[in-house]
Amino acid sequence: MSLQTSINSPTLLVNEAICKANIARMAKKAKEHQLSLIPHFKTHQSLEIGNWYKEFGIDEISVSSIQMAAYFAKQYWENIHIAFPFNPLETDLLNTLAKDHSISVQLVNAPVAQILASQLTNSVGFFIEIDAGYGRAGVEVSDFGKIEDIMRIANRSDKLEFKGFYIHAGHTYHADQMGIHQIHGQTKAALRMLKDKYCDEFPMLVTRSGDTPSCSIENDFTGIDEIGPGNFVFYDLTQANIGSCDKSDIAIALAAPVVDIKKEKHEILVHSGGVHLAKDVLINPDGTKNYGEIVLLNEHGWTIPTKTSFLKSISQEHGVIKATDELLSKVEIGYVLGILPVHSCMTADCMRIYFNLKGEKLDHLKGLKAN
Amino acid sequence: MSLQTSINSPTLLVNEAICKANIARMAKKAKEHQLSLIPHFKTHQSLEIGNWYKEFGIDEISVSSIQMAAYFAKQYWENIHIAFPFNPLETDLLNTLAKDHSISVQLVNAPVAQILASQLTNSVGFFIEIDAGYGRAGVEVSDFGKIEDIMRIANRSDKLEFKGFYIHAGHTYHADQMGIHQIHGQTKAALRMLKDKYCDEFPMLVTRSGDTPSCSIENDFTGIDEIGPGNFVFYDLTQANIGSCDKSDIAIALAAPVVDIKKEKHEILVHSGGVHLAKDVLINPDGTKNYGEIVLLNEHGWTIPTKTSFLKSISQEHGVIKATDELLSKVEIGYVLGILPVHSCMTADCMRIYFNLKGEKLDHLKGLKAN
Repeated sequence: MSLQTSINSPTLLVNEAICKANIARMAKKAKEHQLSLIPHFKTHQSLEIGNWYKEFGIDEISVSSIQMAAYFAKQYWENIHIAFPFNPLETDLLNTLAKDHSISVQLVNAPVAQILASQLTNSVGFFIEIDAGYGRAGVEVSDFGKIEDIMRIANRSDKLEFKGFYIHAGHTYHADQMGIHQIHGQTKAALRMLKDKYCDEFPMLVTRSGDTPSCSIENDFTGIDEIGPGNFVFYDLTQANIGSCDKSDIAIALAAPVVDIKKEKHEILVHSGGVHLAKDVLINPDGTKNYGEIVLLNEHGWTIPTKTSFLKSISQEHGVIKATDELLSKVEIGYVLGILPVHSCMTADCMRIYFNLKGEKLDHLKGLKAN
Repeated sequence: MSLQTSINSPTLLVNEAICKANIARMAKKAKEHQLSLIPHFKTHQSLEIGNWYKEFGIDEISVSSIQMAAYFAKQYWENIHIAFPFNPLETDLLNTLAKDHSISVQLVNAPVAQILASQLTNSVGFFIEIDAGYGRAGVEVSDFGKIEDIMRIANRSDKLEFKGFYIHAGHTYHADQMGIHQIHGQTKAALRMLKDKYCDEFPMLVTRSGDTPSCSIENDFTGIDEIGPGNFVFYDLTQANIGSCDKSDIAIALAAPVVDIKKEKHEILVHSGGVHLAKDVLINPDGTKNYGEIVLLNEHGWTIPTKTSFLKSISQEHGVIKATDELLSKVEIGYVLGILPVHSCMTADCMRIYFNLKGEKLDHLKGLKAN
């Protein structure tokens, strides 16, 4: 398929070879460090892309909602961790799902533990999510009172099974390499401390940590038993920017038709806005905004130009590219350009269908369903 | 239906009474100023919500993509303007649509005019989009050479029918009231100048302008024949912030389950992230970020607390509310809070299905289809 002649409208392309190389690299790293890899599927939300992990011996996955758990449970996956503080209004759904699947959830407070202890009809595992500095969700790392309240409630239930501690250090996404190293140190120290403190009572407890930057960059995982990164399957400009990957590791690109060119302003107008890419943004060194970087589509995928052209602004459907002379010399109205996303999880969630480089559709939970 | 007891997961609520009042107000204003109202349907993208305009005599609508045009053409709407610089790769789709509908497009350059002149099989109207300062799309207002190139190509075609000039002054979204007034002045002056210059040659030409802030706030539309605002049907915090509406005019709210409360930090964690609300953000007077404001759901809709609690951060699925004492005193884990969106067009595009206050589903182009 020639991407240049077969695409007419904004289309999300996925490069299977790059994805599989990203998965292989993370699986190899996990193995080298004796870590179990429990990949987070919230990035791709796709049964077909999920299958690409199978050859690497993955048998447990993470998801970010109970609807996503149900999607993956339906066809292939037996062991699913819902990596979000459990929403007690969804207890009925959890009971249905846990009938014939091994499900674990995250608990961050006693009231939800109590609801589950009273209402669960099937066994469900749980991690206590710990906040070791990110400030988003989880029990403060030193709040042993709350941790033990949750444990006590669970101990009285024959349905709630404590599995261990979970930390998502999402603040690494906004850190530099030294910052990531420091945050990773805090994550390790917190998990090690908790394991030491509670391993006599719970000899089987495991520690799990998740962010893609730490899993990509760091090389010492002492105190961590399991990792649950998600973004690495696609990576994106945010990850390239902080050094988690090279730009050539980015596995998805939005194909965007060129509808106008203003050579004198070095601008190209494309059909590619916030409804396609989402509105995540990077700040360039000169202070300008960057909503995505331009690649050139070819029959085998795309190439990254040596000099960077980028989306300087987007609205609902429009994107304005700040273009180099090189790009302007190659592009005409009616061409289709590729755009590497700033945040691939969000772009995939906007587009809700993938096309591989052969032009075949791949499913997404919220859009096209698999056959 | 009690919203508090019937909602378990993130859900987009639409208040029909507020919507209809917003439509009625804009229709009344248009009539008072002898303006034709050609509402933009990219905000709601819903056949059922589209029907709410019918009682106000609307017979032409605007959309932002050819797919959206096809959606509305399929059932009810005969006259549709695609308010986006035409993508020449979609000419076949346009030909199909123009067979039995009255369609107009926007042109911003000669090459696309030439493609349409050669390839159209049915009559299509067009507006020349003018950039009078926004800097996103359109022919520069003083570039008569380009304007006349487009006209000349169209004159030689028996399928391309020139309808007039269109300006979308989207920079009003980021302006204060004085700024909006100034931008509106530029829009009027540009359209009046163009009409004066070309009305001898094209006595039927009309001028059209679109942004919700100008249409909501301004009271002099001299030089403008038609208005095409969209956002006003729902409004949002951005519009309330610049004075286009009151917060009580905002017609949609995301219902979000509370999964954790940290009283000591004045924080409430809800299931409501970038995949639900989008990531548009306002900056509070104290410099903090605001991704949405909290309302209390009741059986008739929602009420706006006197002191503001707001989403201070969001990620893919999580939202962290900075909560007042008043809110903390009312809310428990398992409650469902309402969130007024920063940008309703983007929130609707994320959620892709609405529930009215009776619990009935309403369609969205990209999600649930109407029966």
